[in-house]
This record gives sequence, structure tokens and C-alpha cells, in this order.
Amino acid sequence: MSESKIDRALLGLLRSLIKPAPLRLALGTPPSAVTPISSATPTVWIRDRRTLLALLRHPQMNFGDLYSAGKIQVEGDLVDLMVRASAMPETVVSRFLSRVTAWFQANTLRGSRRNIHHHYDLSNDFYKLWLDPEMLYTCAYFPDENAGISEAQTAKMDLVCRKLWLKPGETVVEAGCGWGAMALHMARNYGVKVRAFNISHEQIAFARDRAAREGMSDRVEFVEDDYRNISGHYDVFVSIGMLEHVGKSNYPEFSRVIQRSIGDAGRGLLHFIGRNRPRLLNAWIRRRIFPGGYPPTLRDVADIFEPHDYAVLDVENLRQHYARTLEYWLSAYERHFDEVVARFDMTFARMWRLYLAGSAAAFHAGGLQLFQVLFAGRKCASQPWTRARLFESAGSSEDDQCARAMS
Amino acid sequence: MSESKIDRALLGLLRSLIKPAPLRLALGTPPSAVTPISSATPTVWIRDRRTLLALLRHPQMNFGDLYSAGKIQVEGDLVDLMVRASAMPETVVSRFLSRVTAWFQANTLRGSRRNIHHHYDLSNDFYKLWLDPEMLYTCAYFPDENAGISEAQTAKMDLVCRKLWLKPGETVVEAGCGWGAMALHMARNYGVKVRAFNISHEQIAFARDRAAREGMSDRVEFVEDDYRNISGHYDVFVSIGMLEHVGKSNYPEFSRVIQRSIGDAGRGLLHFIGRNRPRLLNAWIRRRIFPGGYPPTLRDVADIFEPHDYAVLDVENLRQHYARTLEYWLSAYERHFDEVVARFDMTFARMWRLYLAGSAAAFHAGGLQLFQVLFAGRKCASQPWTRARLFESAGSSEDDQCARAMS
Repeated sequence: MSESKIDRALLGLLRSLIKPAPLRLALGTPPSAVTPISSATPTVWIRDRRTLLALLRHPQMNFGDLYSAGKIQVEGDLVDLMVRASAMPETVVSRFLSRVTAWFQANTLRGSRRNIHHHYDLSNDFYKLWLDPEMLYTCAYFPDENAGISEAQTAKMDLVCRKLWLKPGETVVEAGCGWGAMALHMARNYGVKVRAFNISHEQIAFARDRAAREGMSDRVEFVEDDYRNISGHYDVFVSIGMLEHVGKSNYPEFSRVIQRSIGDAGRGLLHFIGRNRPRLLNAWIRRRIFPGGYPPTLRDVADIFEPHDYAVLDVENLRQHYARTLEYWLSAYERHFDEVVARFDMTFARMWRLYLAGSAAAFHAGGLQLFQVLFAGRKCASQPWTRARLFESAGSSEDDQCARAMS
Repeated sequence: MSESKIDRALLGLLRSLIKPAPLRLALGTPPSAVTPISSATPTVWIRDRRTLLALLRHPQMNFGDLYSAGKIQVEGDLVDLMVRASAMPETVVSRFLSRVTAWFQANTLRGSRRNIHHHYDLSNDFYKLWLDPEMLYTCAYFPDENAGISEAQTAKMDLVCRKLWLKPGETVVEAGCGWGAMALHMARNYGVKVRAFNISHEQIAFARDRAAREGMSDRVEFVEDDYRNISGHYDVFVSIGMLEHVGKSNYPEFSRVIQRSIGDAGRGLLHFIGRNRPRLLNAWIRRRIFPGGYPPTLRDVADIFEPHDYAVLDVENLRQHYARTLEYWLSAYERHFDEVVARFDMTFARMWRLYLAGSAAAFHAGGLQLFQVLFAGRKCASQPWTRARLFESAGSSEDDQCARAMS
């Protein structure tokens, strides 16, 4: 066979592998420099035969690396491409390799520190480029579809506080507190005292600095430590976007930490990326972006609630909200793409673009879900009668609303 | 030992068995005729040594039968007593006997018919005595704590319809439709067409008659058949208070029935009595009241959603609402107690009193939960953005509310 015949055959093989994903494949480089713009059917440009062979070997893992290296380019909308690619079947080889990498990313105390450092200690300035000003790096809540990202992040914090019916004077422990926005928000607006744990050194330093600047250090304590080392007794346990990093085998221990912290009279909320069915995280995402990550199903998290007789009071699926959140992040990221290239390099910048676009696609297509689970111990008193509190205007009765409407 | 010494020793043994339940035990009959009234610590009067020995042999099973037979009487509030008794540990013997009765109550097609007939075909007139006028025999939803039972049952139906975002012209299949109130409510107020299944002959006859009287027969079809025989394709699947009768081993089949009915584009809601942890239903309840019954955990019901990639969108726990609903039923039942005795006999009347009081206690104490689970297939479009629709006044904007408040 001639060179081009072999290439055509290989391309045909790749096409048959990715079926039924509706996208175009082409060999070579696209006619002009390509940025993620909209077009009818997105085209994946594969630079050469070597790239094509690497892609055939382990598509799930190598697509990401080859894209990052610029050896694969995408003509058309990247999120749209990834949504289409989600129809692609996972190969047996991919699944096996996924499992192998998982073994090397166990969330022991030291493993967790390494895994979390990999992602969250990239530098606060990097995240500042494309997150909202409060630096919330978890799914937002859009009260209506036209809300902006800052408004939606504040609404998310209030949604969580209202679900937990926080009362002034109560104590809260937060497991995995990011840059501290949620802990500060709870203390400032709901009158609670918060101890917030995180093993990301950069994030804790940022959070402490912010607490000091805002005169909140007496009401919010930021502790640089693993959730497994949480001590003390609290009314409320909250964890936003950490469970994905805990790993299924650690749920019994996570459950004991909760029980130790809030006993039978407390309540809590877990906010996490999940699945409808058990499946490992995409191998590339796990290798390059989230080492040790595992998005659980609702069945999986029963390991957390059942052992200590916690009642699940409320589950809300915010899948659509995370797709929207990621689109906001991606568009801010694109605006600062050149800065990311300058700060790191082109490979890193393209890798993160792919991760954000791929995540948006996964939430759009339903491969990933976002669950908020509210739970309470069997001696928890004062549980609200309905969810109506979630939809009352802050600090105002119906009469106030009417008065405002009239004025 | 003298007669009374033996009795005292046996009573002491019973006391040590029921520890730590805070209640009083006494041998003999209470000073005067006892009805369920309030008092500080309820007293269980055990008529004689024979009764005491029977109680010691298998407390979980025999307490109910001895109470029904009038050989055990309760001084004080019966619900309160049952809440206190829920602190009692289950013995190994009780657990074993529970399992044995479970084998004889398998929910095969014929077993289900027998099991359902046992409870729901007691006679419609019996249920009319103590249910609300619409004959809803499932947990109500109290928008506020002071709502009455009729208002709360209507609110429950609207809550379910709003959660499911029903739209005029859509088709709904209902599995286990009771006396038909929900099917008729959906068709009348939400403009949908409903096919409703039930294997209780008495209930279906009642529902058909009502549909005819109300001129709804062209929009609601009542089918006397098992959920396993549901045919046709629908937009929405709904089941209120049937899953408890399905039995865990039938969840894979139940899941296939849902998938066959609504495919990947539909959505559905299951409303069912559940648990925080897996445990068989109390042996006496299962023998005398609900043969074949099993209240699942959220982990158990994953067998329904996972196989066909259904996303859980919303879970609400209405435990407190079921306790309140049961108190309404019990108090209506007490008002008609003499009629129940006249229609059946004293044993039956006391048995049902105990079942209603015991159920109220189980929801109060948290031994039972009530879950509403909303789910959707991965191709389901038009999913609402938030839950705000659940709390909007029917057919009125904020302005309308203000106008009404002003007038």
C-alpha cells in the first residue's frame, strides 16, 4: 500500500472506532489557524500518521495529550465536539488502562496531599484569571438562566446555607474549603462560627489572608489539614466539591469523621460531582487534571449515610448549572488564553482548555451530574417543615415584597 | 417460688429485654376502661402470665396480636408508647422469624394479587370512615403545619404534578392508583391523559365509577392489572405508594417496565416509604397488615435507576408529613372506632388502631422515611432550571398576589 492508502485505512479504522459520534476526521493541519469557533459539524485535524497511530492505541488517554501538544487541532466548537464524542464507546483497553492509573493515585494521607497539590496549587493567580472575584471553583446556582456567574456563585452559597437552616451562634465545620469564600459567607451572613479544612497550602494562605483583611479571623478559622484529622464537635458539617477527591474506598472513614463531628443531632450537606452509573473518571482527566478523582453515584454515597443512620432529607441535581458554570469559566479562560500561555506554556494552556470544554460537555450530555445531598442525624431537632424557605426573598416577608413593588 | 414471685421474675425479664425503652409494665388489667389518652409515662398492662410468656417468646410479633385480642392494654397515648418502644432492640429470634414470614409473601403476579387483596379490598366503606373525602391513602404534604388533611392531600397531588412539570396534552401512566384521586387530579388540572393501573378490584371499581360520574372517562383509563403488564408509551411514569409492595427482588423488572413505558426521553416520580438502613418490615405489620411489604433504602432503589441511566433529579424526604398524616387518620379512626367494631369485630378494630399508631410512631422516631424521587432519562428535554416552580402560587404572578393582598 502507498503512504496515503495506509493513512486512509488507519483513518477508516479510527472512524469505525468512534462511531456513532457525529464528527469529521481529517489528516493534516487545518487550512488556517483554528480557535474554538462555531460550525456545523466539528472537524478533528490529526497532524500525521504518528499522531493517528497514537490515537488508535489509546484514544481516551492520548486524545488529550495530542490535543495539548497541538498535534490534534479542532475546527469548530470544542464543547460541541466533546458532547458529540461522548456518544463514543469506551474500549476495553481504555478501561483497563484507566484502572491501572487509578492504583497509583490512592488517596492515602500523603497521596491526597500530592493529588490535591497537583491541581489546586498551580498558583492562585492562574485561577484568578478565569474564576469569579470570590474565587469559587465549584458549580454555581443560577436562580434564573440569565444570571451572571458572580450572582450565581453567591446564590449557590445562600442555597446551601438555607438548605442547612443555619442559625446564628451555631458552629460549622467545612471539609475542603477552597479559597475560603463559603466559610466567610456563612460566618458573615448567617452568624455562625466556622472551622474550615483544606490541604492545599496556596488556598489556605489565600483564605487566611482574606479573613484577616476582612476582620473575620475570630469567626472563621482556616486549618491546613486533611479532613481525616478534623477534630471538635459542631452543629453542621458541610463539604462543597471535595467528595470527588475522597475516593470510594475512604467513604467509611469519611462517614466516621462526619459522625465524630456532628453526632446524631447534627446535619450536613455534601455537594459533589456524581454519576448515574458507576464508572471511573476519564483516564486523561485523572492523569493530567484530577489525580485520584472519582465521581460517585448515589448508591456509592450510601456508604457515608447508612452506617450512622443519617436520613437523607433532600437531594438536588444541578447538572445543568454546572454546564453553565463551566461555559462561563471557559469563556473567561479563552479571554485570558494568551496570559496562560505566557505564564505556563502552550501545551498547558491547551490542556486546560480541553479539560474545561470536556467537563462542560460531560455535564451537558449527562455523563456527569452534580448532586447536593442534605442529611441529618436521627436526633436532629428543628428540621424545617418544607423547602419554602429556599425561595423566600432574603430578610423580607410577602408584605415587604408588595410594598417594594408598589413604591 | 410462689405464683406472684414467678410473675415478678418474668416481668423483670421482660423489662430487661425492652430496655432502654422508657415505659411502664404492669401485670393485670388497668383500673378502669382504657382508651388512648395522654399521660406522663404510658403503661402496658399485661393481663396474665400466659400473655406475659407469649410476649417474652416473640415480642415483635406477639405484642400486636395480644394487643388486638385485648390481652394487652395501654394506659396513656398509644403513639407515644410506640415511639418509646422504638428504642427497643430487635432480638435475634424476631429477626429470624421475620425472614421466615417474608418467604411466604413473595410478590409473584399471584402473590401480589393475594397480598394487595388482603389490605386494600377490606371494603371501600371501611376506608371512607377515616380517610379524606378524596380517599388518598398515602402521605400528604402540609404546606404549613396548620393545614388540614384535605388541603394537604390536594397540596401533595399538586406538588407531584409540579415536580413532574406536566404539560397539557402529555400522557401519563400511573402504577398503583389507589381509588383514583391522583389520576383524576392530573387529568383535570394539568390537561394530561392518564392510564392508571391497580390490582385491587374494589379500588378500580370505585375509581371507574368516579371517573364516569365526573365525565372524565375519556381522559383517564383505569386498568385492573399488575404494573408488570403495563403496555404503551408515555411521557411520564408516576407511582405513589406502590414501591413498598413491589419487593426488592422485583426492582430490575420494575426498572424495565419504566424503561419500556417512557424510554430515554421521559421522566417519572416514585413516592414511597423507605428506610435509612436496610431492614425488614416489622414482622407483625407484615403478617397482619402489609404482606409482602418492604420499605427500601435509597441504595436499594438505585437498582431501578442505574440500569437504564436514569438521572435522579430531586429527592425529598417527607417523614414529618407522614407522621402528621397518620395522626389525622388515627384521630378520625378513633372517632369511628365503634363503627369499625360493629362492621368487623373488636380484635380487627384494635389491630388497625395499633397499626395506625405504630406507623405514626415509626415516622416520628425516624424508623421509617417517606421519599419522593424525581428522575429523568438522558434524552429528556425541557427540564426546569430550578425548583422555584414548586412554590409559585397556582395561576398567579407576584403582582396578582400583591393585588389580592391589597384588596
